[in-house]
Order: sequence, then structure tokens, then C-alpha cells
Amino acid sequence: MLAACSGGADSMALASALAFEAPRAGLRAGGVTVDHGLQQGSDVRAAEVADRMRALGLAPVEAIAVSVGRSGGPEAAARDARYAALDAAAERHGAAAVLLGHTRDDQAETVLLGLARGSGTRSLSGMAWVSGTGGRYRRPFLQLDRHTVREACLAQSLPVWDDPHNVDPSYTRSRVRHEALPILEKALGKGVVEALARTAQLSRDDADTLDAWAARAEADVMTTAPAAAGGAQAVHLDTVGLHGLPAAVRRRVLRRAAIAAGAPAGSLFARHIEEVDRLITGWRGQRAINLPGRVEVRREGGRLVIRQG
Amino acid sequence: MLAACSGGADSMALASALAFEAPRAGLRAGGVTVDHGLQQGSDVRAAEVADRMRALGLAPVEAIAVSVGRSGGPEAAARDARYAALDAAAERHGAAAVLLGHTRDDQAETVLLGLARGSGTRSLSGMAWVSGTGGRYRRPFLQLDRHTVREACLAQSLPVWDDPHNVDPSYTRSRVRHEALPILEKALGKGVVEALARTAQLSRDDADTLDAWAARAEADVMTTAPAAAGGAQAVHLDTVGLHGLPAAVRRRVLRRAAIAAGAPAGSLFARHIEEVDRLITGWRGQRAINLPGRVEVRREGGRLVIRQG
Repeated sequence: MLAACSGGADSMALASALAFEAPRAGLRAGGVTVDHGLQQGSDVRAAEVADRMRALGLAPVEAIAVSVGRSGGPEAAARDARYAALDAAAERHGAAAVLLGHTRDDQAETVLLGLARGSGTRSLSGMAWVSGTGGRYRRPFLQLDRHTVREACLAQSLPVWDDPHNVDPSYTRSRVRHEALPILEKALGKGVVEALARTAQLSRDDADTLDAWAARAEADVMTTAPAAAGGAQAVHLDTVGLHGLPAAVRRRVLRRAAIAAGAPAGSLFARHIEEVDRLITGWRGQRAINLPGRVEVRREGGRLVIRQG
Repeated sequence: MLAACSGGADSMALASALAFEAPRAGLRAGGVTVDHGLQQGSDVRAAEVADRMRALGLAPVEAIAVSVGRSGGPEAAARDARYAALDAAAERHGAAAVLLGHTRDDQAETVLLGLARGSGTRSLSGMAWVSGTGGRYRRPFLQLDRHTVREACLAQSLPVWDDPHNVDPSYTRSRVRHEALPILEKALGKGVVEALARTAQLSRDDADTLDAWAARAEADVMTTAPAAAGGAQAVHLDTVGLHGLPAAVRRRVLRRAAIAAGAPAGSLFARHIEEVDRLITGWRGQRAINLPGRVEVRREGGRLVIRQG
């Protein structure tokens, strides 16, 4: 079991809790810190965080330097590099789990960020308790508020480091944390963080249930899907079957089919799916619709044909 | 067809649009304004708004004085009194529809207010295009932004009146409009209002689909439901059947059953349903659970018994 630790209060409290609990539960527990190389002296800092984890009694402990790309913006690129390093560390050490220090406040921020995308229930479902390959990532602090976690650090006199990115207003999450959430609390009352975290859980259950329905429905409405010559599979769907589905399920089937045909999930927005849906619910002889990833959707009689060009 | 008009820019634009369109569509169109009696001189103002609607060519036009109670807080009480008056006016005039001037910005505010309740997908679904008894209420401006609607007033030199409640920070909606949304736009980018409005539509479809599933599932898991002596019906549900449902559907079934047994929907929160759910998913011999409205839920062997005490 590995604690992922930035040196900040939340993940230092996590590392400390893991170091305390693991021996009592008969588990081996180590720690990993990732040096993103984005600030002067970040390597020195990472070594320091690793030393602090060793001092807590975690072993093995690693500081891993990564190189952050640019894909998807600075926050997404840093996150991608970090998780790749954590995945590799878990494999290397044969760790059954990697613990992350996200709190209920992080969850609330994630829900607000998802709300801004406006892409529905899944994007409001925040972070899962358990995620990643084989359920590797665990977030044991997801129902604790940040204040409680920070008090744990104070009570143990744990040295912590505040990442300046966390207060840098050029980062969206930092603006959400320091500007949006306090004003929302002022406007809507003190329970906002809790309400957002509960929204995440309820939205996740709803999204899981509807996704499972969509997977079954897709199998029902999929007709022959001959392998395309090169590229991803072309998908054929029965329009009568699609028409009989509830809108929420039909749109999910269309999204799944577009992704199966080669459209990149991250570039496929609600407005794309709405346009495809109109081939079913508002058919008046429209032309083929172009989706991201050179995927084309056209209606041919009683079939919707989705293929990569 | 009746326009509901407060005299504010949104509903004046609506009254004007209705007065223009109705004769072209061969429809009779009148207007109603409600005097909530909450401010000095509100009766004079209501008479003035009625005159303005007459000047637009609407007929019949009525100003209706209501008395606002206290139930559910000042905003809810005013809304209840207003809709009761609008319902009565629609009946009196035999109106097929009552048009409301809510814009996309109002929808975004409603989603944020629902988010603060933290009670899931239904509470994020905002206002419907069509609602009320027999689909009486229609919101034709729900996809227009407020700015566009206000420009229509300017372009027509329509005299408008700004309700001081709209800028009164003691009203939650006013704080959402003037404090929360501008800061959210600053933190998350310009598309927030549009994203919130799209969230409403997607959430509504998801909630409708899951509610319909829950209605079917409830019929499947409901065993004998003998009429209680006085009070609402006792409801018996099969625990094995409930256990087999996805969490999102099971919780909706439990909520429906609690309401059928007499619990008031408005007082039934997510945490109540979670507690009832643990009689199914975390059974360890718990005692009966008390819900609002003196409704009691207990597990008796393979049955969940929900009844009003």
C-alpha cells in the first residue's frame, strides 16, 4: 500500500495515518511523492517530502521526477504525468492500493468544475472512492472536511508545505477554491460543500445505473457491425429500437456508439450527441453529421450508420 | 392564453411578444399581474402593470391581490400565493395556457439553488418548459438569455419596473444572481449560465427516466398493502427484490413508498432515504426508522413495512 503525498497538509495527514494504521493491520506501507519539475527547487522539496515520509516510518519511499507535457492544459497535463508515475510506482512495488488525500472539499470543487462543463450527471459525480485499474486508487478522506484533516496535522505537529499553485488564481481549481466556493457559501448557506459532495454521490449512482442500462440497450439495437477496412469498427444501430428508448438512455447509447466508432470521448460534447439524436427524434432528411475523430453519422433508412472516415 | 407579468423586463417582453403573436395565430390572449401586497403601494403598481398590458392590446387583463403566508420562508410563500392566483385566473378565464417569462438566467439560478439542497438529479433539473396541472404553465423564454430579453424591451421602449426584491440581498435568489453567478463566471469562464441550463435539461431527462424505472420497480417489489385503519396506506416491500435493484432505483422506490405511506415529500431528505436504505443494504437488526410525517419504517423478516403511526 502506497500513500501519494505532495507534502501538503491533506496528504501528509494521510501518510501519517497510513504509517500509524498499516502495521496494526499487518500491511506494508510505503509512500511516493511526485516532482512535477514546474518550480525552481522542486527536486529539493520532493526529497524533503520523501524524508518526512521516511520519518513517519513508511518504507519504501520514493521521490519520482516526471516531465509534464502540455496536452489538455497545465492542470490536466500535470495530473496525467502524476498518475502515470503513481501507476508505475504501484506496479514496481507490487502495491495493492495507492491512497490519495482528497477531502470532501476537493470533491465539492470537482463537482463545481464538472458543473461548468455542463455535460450532465456523469460530470457531476466527482471523484470515486475507488478508481483506476483494478480499483488501485482509494480516497479514504473523501468524506472528511479539509479543516478536520488540517487539524490532524497541527495536532501531530506535522511539517506541511503549501503548494503555491493552490493559491495561484491562474489555475481554475484555485479560483474555485478561493473565490467561487466562499461566495457560494455566503449566498446559499454553510452546507454548500456537504451538498456538493452529496450531489457527487447521488449523481454517480444515477450515472452508473443509466450507463448500465445504455450498455444493455446498445446490445439490443445494434444490428450488423461489419469490421471497417482499417480504423475502428463501423457501428449500425436500429432507428426504431433507438426511438423507443427514453431520451436519457438513447443519448448514452449514441455516445457509446460514437466512441466505439473512434470518436475521442473527451472531445464529444452534449451538443454533438444532441445533433445525432435529432437524426432519430427529428428526422427530416438531414445530411451526415461529423463528429470529432473524423467520425461520421448518417441515417440510411431504418439504420444509423456510424463510422470513421 | 394568459401572460403572467410582474411588470419587470422579462415578463413585459413576454406580454408584448404574446400581444404581437396571438392575433396572428388566431389566439385570444390576456394578462395577469399578481399584487403580493408586500410593499407599500404595490396595489397602485399592479394597476399600472395591468394598464400597460391593456395598452399592448391584451384582453382580458387582471390585477389580482393575494395574501402571502409564511410557510416555507418568504420566497416560497410568495410563490405559492402567486401560482394559486394564476391557477384560479386560468380556470376563471378558461385559459389553455399561462405563459411565464423565465429566462435561461433564471434557469441557471434555479439549478444553483437546487445544488445547494444536495438532493440529487431531480433537484438539479430546474424549471420545465411545460409544467403544472395539464401542462398549463409554459416558459417560452427558457433558452433565451436575460440580456436578449431586456434588449427587446429597450428596442420597443417598453416601460419596465425593477422589483426591489430582485436586488435585496436578504433573498437567496438575489444573492445567487448578483453575487454567486458573477463570481462563478469569473472562476469558471463565461459559459457558466449556459452550462447550468444544459445541466438542467440533462438532469431532467435522467431524473424522468430513473423515476419511471422506479415506478415499475415499485410495482414489482410491492407485496400486499392492506389499507391502514385511518390515515394513509401502509406499504409492504419485498427486501430481496429491493436488494436486486441498482442503488439509484432502489432509493427512488423507497422514497416513493415513504411518500405513499404519508411522509411529506418536501421534508424527506436524502439522508432519510439513506438510513432506510441501510435496512436493505446494511441489515444488522436495526430498530424502526422514523421519517417526517410520523411515518415509521421497519424490517420484518423479508419485508419492509412502511406505515404512518
